[in-house]
Amino acid sequence: MLVGWLALNFLPIHAVPQPQYHSVRPSESTSVSIGLAKHCSKAVPISAAEFHSRQDKLAQTLHALNATAYIAEPGADALYYANLSMSSWKLSERPLLLVITPDASDSELVKAKVSILTPKFETARARLLPIAFQDVTFLEWAEEANPYEMVKPALAEADAAGTIFVDGHARHFIVDGLQSAFPTATVKSSPTEIRQLRERKSKAELELMKCANEATVLAIRETRKKMYIGIRESETSALIEAAFKGAGLKDGGCLTLFGENAALPHGSGADRKLGVHDFALLDCGASLHGYPSDVTRTFALNDSQISAEQKRIWNAVWGAQNIAFTTAEAGVVAKRIDKAARLFLSLNGLDQYFTHRLGHGIGLEGHEDPYINGGSETVLKTGHSFSDEPGVYIEGDIGVRLEDCFYIADDGQPVYLTAGVGGVATSPWEP
Amino acid sequence: MLVGWLALNFLPIHAVPQPQYHSVRPSESTSVSIGLAKHCSKAVPISAAEFHSRQDKLAQTLHALNATAYIAEPGADALYYANLSMSSWKLSERPLLLVITPDASDSELVKAKVSILTPKFETARARLLPIAFQDVTFLEWAEEANPYEMVKPALAEADAAGTIFVDGHARHFIVDGLQSAFPTATVKSSPTEIRQLRERKSKAELELMKCANEATVLAIRETRKKMYIGIRESETSALIEAAFKGAGLKDGGCLTLFGENAALPHGSGADRKLGVHDFALLDCGASLHGYPSDVTRTFALNDSQISAEQKRIWNAVWGAQNIAFTTAEAGVVAKRIDKAARLFLSLNGLDQYFTHRLGHGIGLEGHEDPYINGGSETVLKTGHSFSDEPGVYIEGDIGVRLEDCFYIADDGQPVYLTAGVGGVATSPWEP
Repeated sequence: MLVGWLALNFLPIHAVPQPQYHSVRPSESTSVSIGLAKHCSKAVPISAAEFHSRQDKLAQTLHALNATAYIAEPGADALYYANLSMSSWKLSERPLLLVITPDASDSELVKAKVSILTPKFETARARLLPIAFQDVTFLEWAEEANPYEMVKPALAEADAAGTIFVDGHARHFIVDGLQSAFPTATVKSSPTEIRQLRERKSKAELELMKCANEATVLAIRETRKKMYIGIRESETSALIEAAFKGAGLKDGGCLTLFGENAALPHGSGADRKLGVHDFALLDCGASLHGYPSDVTRTFALNDSQISAEQKRIWNAVWGAQNIAFTTAEAGVVAKRIDKAARLFLSLNGLDQYFTHRLGHGIGLEGHEDPYINGGSETVLKTGHSFSDEPGVYIEGDIGVRLEDCFYIADDGQPVYLTAGVGGVATSPWEP
Repeated sequence: MLVGWLALNFLPIHAVPQPQYHSVRPSESTSVSIGLAKHCSKAVPISAAEFHSRQDKLAQTLHALNATAYIAEPGADALYYANLSMSSWKLSERPLLLVITPDASDSELVKAKVSILTPKFETARARLLPIAFQDVTFLEWAEEANPYEMVKPALAEADAAGTIFVDGHARHFIVDGLQSAFPTATVKSSPTEIRQLRERKSKAELELMKCANEATVLAIRETRKKMYIGIRESETSALIEAAFKGAGLKDGGCLTLFGENAALPHGSGADRKLGVHDFALLDCGASLHGYPSDVTRTFALNDSQISAEQKRIWNAVWGAQNIAFTTAEAGVVAKRIDKAARLFLSLNGLDQYFTHRLGHGIGLEGHEDPYINGGSETVLKTGHSFSDEPGVYIEGDIGVRLEDCFYIADDGQPVYLTAGVGGVATSPWEP
């Protein structure tokens, strides 16, 4: 954590902590299963108060930026501000939009005004949406009307010439339509000040993310105990899906790749049996109250026969994951973290096999802004959360990836979201 | 077909052909089932030659508009031009883009130059895409690079200040990224000249659309024969899904609504049993080589007891559907067709219950541009295809919708895509 990029350039390899291997067989008891089942049973969804606070913070930011409105389609941003996801309202050609404007009538405190633009004939359905709002206005557009014109009542007249920020994930024709309806306004994607509101996680969000990621590690460990030489990738996936269900997590699943199949980072399409000389790579995620986990473990079974070269590669990836973590802290530019991992692998002669970025933001989306890659100028701040997932992929031979997500705590230091269950893997036999 | 909007204003109601009711019981034979199974067995997917022709027509249109490039994300537009759908490449935060530029080096004939911008570490997977192209260039962007900068090699240097058209369904951050990478260019949504290339269907497309829509009518008729008083909406849906599978169509399904449930155009969520006094409304679609059908029938069983008022409403919707069809021809402004149906319902005192637009374009998307609503200024041209689907919805009481899709033939006249199996329903007992 104290290792910055400049220091890293001079860091000898042996300064990186080495993984410790143990030969202890994993417990055969079923306690993990019960533990897994209960692990997140007390997790609570985001409160209405937090939704309201998010809306007001957005309104205050809009006011500070002298902007008129913020507009989003159903999606991750609208889910963050108003509990309005794409699964509660499927996108169609008919726009349904979340419109948030700042109400500065109370000079002490800027509050959010929330409106929903809805197709008129679907207003009854729109009113049933589980939208988190303090007080909402429904703006209806009839089939023969220009929907975007109907946004106007939400905006003060003088504001029609201001700046309207949109969620960059909105479809371009929506932005086009708004720009045409507000020809004197500037309609553009949200700036950093607004994007950071969602990027930097709250305590309540981090609690959910921790539990989801911890349960994912527990599910992988439990699944490993049930695996055997000869099991298929699909059978392994089925085992862990059942574990996620038992844990009460949603949409749980893994990309499961054995042996040389793991050399293709996004999968092979074959359904391989686990060989005695194979590593198993499981890249898993499951969702808790809307927050998905993301954990990858590459491991061996107790009966596996793993070569020295396989162990060397595993250790190198493990070291890269650790060095990246220790490089991350508030104030660091994200690309340095990617470079730290890459440098470590280069010292082991393996950097050419690390073909993707180090990590991605994670929150309501499994992959979200900001990203950690060699070009990322994002400066890490408290509450930012990322995956840390270096990998080595040698086609036709081997693939090793280790992934844990972390966040930047209030003291500016990184904390793994899996820390509650021991954090990163400690050996190929202890995922 | 000869009835224009002005003429319609003076058309007496009785001039509209009246539905004929028959009391003949539907055949109990299984011939329909065999007929349905074989109905689309000879349908052929869009040929490579047609894909190439689409690309060249686009290039020629770009050249005529003095534009530099056309860019799309995987989706319906990219599917149309290059067989690149969202199911063959899932959208993620990493842009994969179809780039088509005009090559006018042969002064006689402008040809298309096709490029795919792909994440570098996924190039191997991108090369496996079943993209229809004459000759394609893969533009790779490394994880640390700005993806949009990598589009530049596809464009002539002088063209970087020209106009780049994008598919309006692209996500706004993609358009933002392109505009930033090409600061002197104008990046904007495709104009009518380009959108019409896909909106106006070819013979091969119409053949697929006809077969899909015909098979859908046959599946509804066959399902009706297996229905009984007391059957549930879900059981009916299961029956017709099986029929679609038997017909070799993909993603087949229906919104199935009985009695007063049908008064909610997009469904109720309950699973009602069919009562003896109920109409059944089935709004069905299934896909043939990428082209989805869309047919709605509202019908009674032979054992149903249907009131005079129910019949009056059914007849009014039937008349509205017919009058809309006869209003549609090349040269007509789309909103007139919507108004024709609405006028007919108003003459029956039912227009206030017709709460949605008359129809939507249909092709590679189930709902696509252009639309037929009270504000649509689109002028109908040959090859345009639309749904014609008036409805009457009286909440808590009854819902009736009748839907057939039609296209504008070379002679400028409308033809139902269901004409090959008899076209529109002729009575509540003959869907």
